[in-house]
Amino acid sequence: MIKKVGVAILGLGVVGGGTYQTLTEHREYYQKTQNVDITVEAVLVRDKQKAMEKGLPKAIVTDNIAEVIANPNVDIVIETIGGVGAAKDYVLAALREGKTVVTANKEMICKYSHELERVAKRTGCGMYYEASCVGGVPIIRTLLDGVQANRVQQMMGIINGTTNYILTKMTQEGAEYADALKDAQKLGYAEADPTNDVEGFDALYKLSILSSLAFHTKVPYTKIFREGISKINAKDIAYGKSLGYTLKLLAIGKNTSQGIEARVHPTFVPDAHPLASVNDAFNAVYLKGDAVGDIMLYGRGAGALPTASAVVSDVIYAATHSDVKYSTFKNNATAEACVKFVSDFESAYYVRLAVDDEAGTLATVSGIFGKCGISLVAVSQITQKKELDDEGKLRVPLVIITHKTTENRIGKAMAKINASGIGKVQAAIRVEN
Amino acid sequence: MIKKVGVAILGLGVVGGGTYQTLTEHREYYQKTQNVDITVEAVLVRDKQKAMEKGLPKAIVTDNIAEVIANPNVDIVIETIGGVGAAKDYVLAALREGKTVVTANKEMICKYSHELERVAKRTGCGMYYEASCVGGVPIIRTLLDGVQANRVQQMMGIINGTTNYILTKMTQEGAEYADALKDAQKLGYAEADPTNDVEGFDALYKLSILSSLAFHTKVPYTKIFREGISKINAKDIAYGKSLGYTLKLLAIGKNTSQGIEARVHPTFVPDAHPLASVNDAFNAVYLKGDAVGDIMLYGRGAGALPTASAVVSDVIYAATHSDVKYSTFKNNATAEACVKFVSDFESAYYVRLAVDDEAGTLATVSGIFGKCGISLVAVSQITQKKELDDEGKLRVPLVIITHKTTENRIGKAMAKINASGIGKVQAAIRVEN
Repeated sequence: MIKKVGVAILGLGVVGGGTYQTLTEHREYYQKTQNVDITVEAVLVRDKQKAMEKGLPKAIVTDNIAEVIANPNVDIVIETIGGVGAAKDYVLAALREGKTVVTANKEMICKYSHELERVAKRTGCGMYYEASCVGGVPIIRTLLDGVQANRVQQMMGIINGTTNYILTKMTQEGAEYADALKDAQKLGYAEADPTNDVEGFDALYKLSILSSLAFHTKVPYTKIFREGISKINAKDIAYGKSLGYTLKLLAIGKNTSQGIEARVHPTFVPDAHPLASVNDAFNAVYLKGDAVGDIMLYGRGAGALPTASAVVSDVIYAATHSDVKYSTFKNNATAEACVKFVSDFESAYYVRLAVDDEAGTLATVSGIFGKCGISLVAVSQITQKKELDDEGKLRVPLVIITHKTTENRIGKAMAKINASGIGKVQAAIRVEN
Repeated sequence: MIKKVGVAILGLGVVGGGTYQTLTEHREYYQKTQNVDITVEAVLVRDKQKAMEKGLPKAIVTDNIAEVIANPNVDIVIETIGGVGAAKDYVLAALREGKTVVTANKEMICKYSHELERVAKRTGCGMYYEASCVGGVPIIRTLLDGVQANRVQQMMGIINGTTNYILTKMTQEGAEYADALKDAQKLGYAEADPTNDVEGFDALYKLSILSSLAFHTKVPYTKIFREGISKINAKDIAYGKSLGYTLKLLAIGKNTSQGIEARVHPTFVPDAHPLASVNDAFNAVYLKGDAVGDIMLYGRGAGALPTASAVVSDVIYAATHSDVKYSTFKNNATAEACVKFVSDFESAYYVRLAVDDEAGTLATVSGIFGKCGISLVAVSQITQKKELDDEGKLRVPLVIITHKTTENRIGKAMAKINASGIGKVQAAIRVEN
């Protein structure tokens, strides 16, 4: 017998619209292949007239959330409003009423999953949020049901499409950041105020969610180091490229004997690394498990239909599985007391200096790194051309790749170079091998 | 409350051994993270002495299948024997007894899933086989629970590690097939009789399973076109490379308005395609869904622990989900009557000719392709050097890349060239863009 399931969609923006389209176009297909008949019983919008102009039937369009929550035909509430204002109130109301929730809202899940889950447990509802991370790529399903036999030791992801588009443009065309951003805005990949994407907040929320699931303990976003791409210089991307590295905004989570380490920052990866060839608005997550070894998931991290794919897959999952699973870790706002977080983390570095073109400079620089306990992989004067450094002096660029060192040590080395009188640090970018 | 689950492992080879290791080493970890206590209650082996020398407790080692099936502490039977002899009998016996089965056996699932599923349905057991395809990569879980909101339109996979290792070696080192095979055998990547891998049977079984799940209809292995890599010449890999293509053994499934198309054969892909950089024994599956667009899963397709990761993930899934789902398509030995299969499929081609070095040759060749309705992307005389062709004549190689055409047309064009007197076809390899 076919199972009948009614859903409500809150919001009719990009993701809400894509979800409505996917559910209605595939209704018969899901009846045949999933043995479930999913009907859209209500769509919550601000402007009913506009929704009806988009072709939605009058009977399902509403601007009254109370009506949606009270509707006995609605089994599952899909939240695609975003943010942590009304969206959160509506989700809480739905859960309290015993309705399972599917959401694409990373900020809400990152900041309030503990609060939502508490209510869901009480009323026996499910809470699904595959669409909150990496669009259509089923990374959450994979963590929960695909690689759960593993201790996940490490995760490295390109999980923000806007920044990956900008960095790809800068890499392939030598564009400067400001121009690549403008281009991304024109194409709709970046918002008018791009802060959330380019400064790494979007990736931060996603990394908090994914690393909490991967490491089975709460990784609050406040414990994650964050650095955006807005200060990146096209020159450094080009120099890195000439040494065999590609620049990406990586979200990195590691679970080591020292503790949990979570960080979002621009990172050079070797050209041969599978993440190096993830271009444009594509996303990918690279995982290392203690049994499976390295695996990678790749796909579109945003967009109406890719995100709708994740939303609707969650809806079908909720409709066809009677068990509801909650986080097995203590899902709180804060981390468990017993968990240590690494802040002085280890990383290799790309460092660009502007130095005086004099004999002995190289020896002085190498000496400073050596004294700080940092060994070097390569020191390269990529061009002989003098360039204006940030003090307005004509100097030559000197690029250094270090072995793994700590934040602490690299900070000391850079301060010593800046104080040495022979040159200044122009850029320092982390490297993962 | 923690759920207690007893398992039996049939066979203690590579996968069985890896599974035993993974289950015992992670027992406490699964208690904490999955709320399930999995104990190995029995291990079926041929030689009890040998198993005990490997450190297995005497109490769980047995050579008596009846004992295993009758053991009331065994809830889940893990089959890692392989083949369709004893393995199938044991699995049927377990299912009849009401025990859920987890298996890594691609040949058995490919050929007999309909028979096994019939029994499983009758006794209400689950049948899980993630480990049968692409090792630790959770491709089956993804098809069932990750992209099920999509109509999967296309699937292209590197799903055999042995052939990918051999082709990588031939590509990167210019090695000939025979030498690369020997190397793979030395490293344990290829068996003494490599037929099953190099002639594409292994990939064929996996493609039958994966495309049946993806397209929601039985795709019997007998409907799949198969061509192996044993006839591939290092020269063609090098010529293809110089034109920007990488050679892979691809398993391809397409679901089009013309019908279902499934094939395993050596295939050139453009260097920029994500599958082109999947090297050595790594595997990957590239999917196209109507909502999600392109996604790719990448990881180790074989090996003790990667495969054990898939086996144990299935065990945990079975232990923590009370619903059992069966194929929603009619799972029979044969395809459904209403489904059409495409045999004269469309493909672009790389063709290498040995031609006489005379004026007018190019015009004649182009003319033949034109008359057969095949348009050309490129005609290139990669080297001026005369080479012995397969008739022992000194001729120059001429490489042609065609646009998409049919099997039928390309066959006619090649026959006409061979009959023309100006040269002979030396190689013809399909191209996917």
